Amino acid sequence: MLVLVGLGLGGADDITVNGLKMVQRCSEVFYESYTSIQAHGFDLTVLENAYNKKITLCNREKIENDTDRILDLAEKTDVCILVVGDPFGATTHWSICQQALSRKIPFQVVHNASILTAVGCCGLQLYNFGQTVTVVSWTDTWKPDSYFDRIEANLSCGAHTLCLMDLTLGERTIEGIMSASWSVNVGVLDFCRNKPEYKPPAFMSASAAAKQLLEIIEMRRQRGAVTLLKETSRCVGLARIGWPDQKIVCRSLAEMSTTDLGEPLHSLVIVGSTHPLEEEALRMWQ
Amino acid sequence: MLVLVGLGLGGADDITVNGLKMVQRCSEVFYESYTSIQAHGFDLTVLENAYNKKITLCNREKIENDTDRILDLAEKTDVCILVVGDPFGATTHWSICQQALSRKIPFQVVHNASILTAVGCCGLQLYNFGQTVTVVSWTDTWKPDSYFDRIEANLSCGAHTLCLMDLTLGERTIEGIMSASWSVNVGVLDFCRNKPEYKPPAFMSASAAAKQLLEIIEMRRQRGAVTLLKETSRCVGLARIGWPDQKIVCRSLAEMSTTDLGEPLHSLVIVGSTHPLEEEALRMWQ
Repeated sequence: MLVLVGLGLGGADDITVNGLKMVQRCSEVFYESYTSIQAHGFDLTVLENAYNKKITLCNREKIENDTDRILDLAEKTDVCILVVGDPFGATTHWSICQQALSRKIPFQVVHNASILTAVGCCGLQLYNFGQTVTVVSWTDTWKPDSYFDRIEANLSCGAHTLCLMDLTLGERTIEGIMSASWSVNVGVLDFCRNKPEYKPPAFMSASAAAKQLLEIIEMRRQRGAVTLLKETSRCVGLARIGWPDQKIVCRSLAEMSTTDLGEPLHSLVIVGSTHPLEEEALRMWQ
Repeated sequence: MLVLVGLGLGGADDITVNGLKMVQRCSEVFYESYTSIQAHGFDLTVLENAYNKKITLCNREKIENDTDRILDLAEKTDVCILVVGDPFGATTHWSICQQALSRKIPFQVVHNASILTAVGCCGLQLYNFGQTVTVVSWTDTWKPDSYFDRIEANLSCGAHTLCLMDLTLGERTIEGIMSASWSVNVGVLDFCRNKPEYKPPAFMSASAAAKQLLEIIEMRRQRGAVTLLKETSRCVGLARIGWPDQKIVCRSLAEMSTTDLGEPLHSLVIVGSTHPLEEEALRMWQ
């Protein structure tokens, strides 16, 4: 059997009772470390101790490249993949589920909280959100801005936009490149547990995302375009949602670009048209 | 302290470990029975036994009318309100949170899964969903159709639409009307536990929602309007998501109007533009 278990907003106790039962029942437990890394002082041993289970860290590349091996394992025994948020926040997980179903391997999902709904804690109504975007980190030579068009489309019909922050994976370390080959060891996959194959990932901050949005506005202005999103547009910065030290602030986009929300993970909401109740809520974060 | 605890998709074990700890710590536990009733053979004693705690059922009206009394209680002791899904799926809960904060009553939220993200289990990407709508049940004299415009707006930019089903509360029973007064009994609120104040609620089915959408198309056609949503448009019907007997089917809107998905709760997704991976997923539900 293959079980995808959502870990919700990331603390060891954010797993559901059902999810915990699944983890304890499975003989192999993997932790998917790519699609949303538990940034906030993450330590795998905390989860291992809380669940009283050995957990193997594996990155997305390995899950994607070795789906067949994971499914071979799931044919013989109960295998669990832990995923931060809800398991279907990322395409990767749907794809492994689909392959399990087509191989007729019993398959289960344990849903959990995701920032996509937890964002409701800022008081903006979930019904009033349009399509979610990811603010992609720019490099010197690669500056995609298509997500900006979605924000504009949402604003044009009064909808709020949840902007997720890009996760910049560090480059592979030399040690990582040298050890990238796979080994099957006593029938168990070696997911290079605790091996520093990648440099630590970089998390985009809400202020960096705001800065990048301001740059796009400026670039478009120079081309003569008029954007709905402006320096004065209101946005809500959210940090560490679901954690005891979560932080929510409401600022103009320009102000947000210089606002430090502290440790990751951050999200940013571009505010569309508001209901009076939403206005009341936003006043609390000013 | 006031704690809002999400129950996720509705089984007793769908609570998070953190949520369960909160329930066990609180001296008063309420179960909010309006915004998303646990339909599927719901029995409060199942939760009481699972959590080893007395739980008081209360409807939205009482939470809204007696927020002050609940907060008075929360000033003196630890009070928990259990809510199906994520606590911020409904405005009611934001409002009580806001009042707690303004009265400086310590306040916490335990997030959980919601159909708003669990819908990803059908293989359509959450990023490609536009604004969510609720298909409102019509009466003979009241036939609102503004949600249809949101579906059209989503389709016009290629986005999918999650349609939640209206929950039709039954009329009050005579017994309910007779017992509607409040009593404060030994300092604890009497939320008329186990008293059948309302007739059982009616849940809209995905087929009924599809039928109503077809009626709106026909009404608009008669007015000479051309709609993007058509009889042949694809939609996905979802029933009992997160439960062992969940069901997902992909049909044309016309076919969906005669498809029986069984017990509640149902949801319906109007499919917008699709990615090849999404197409693969949809083929599984045909």
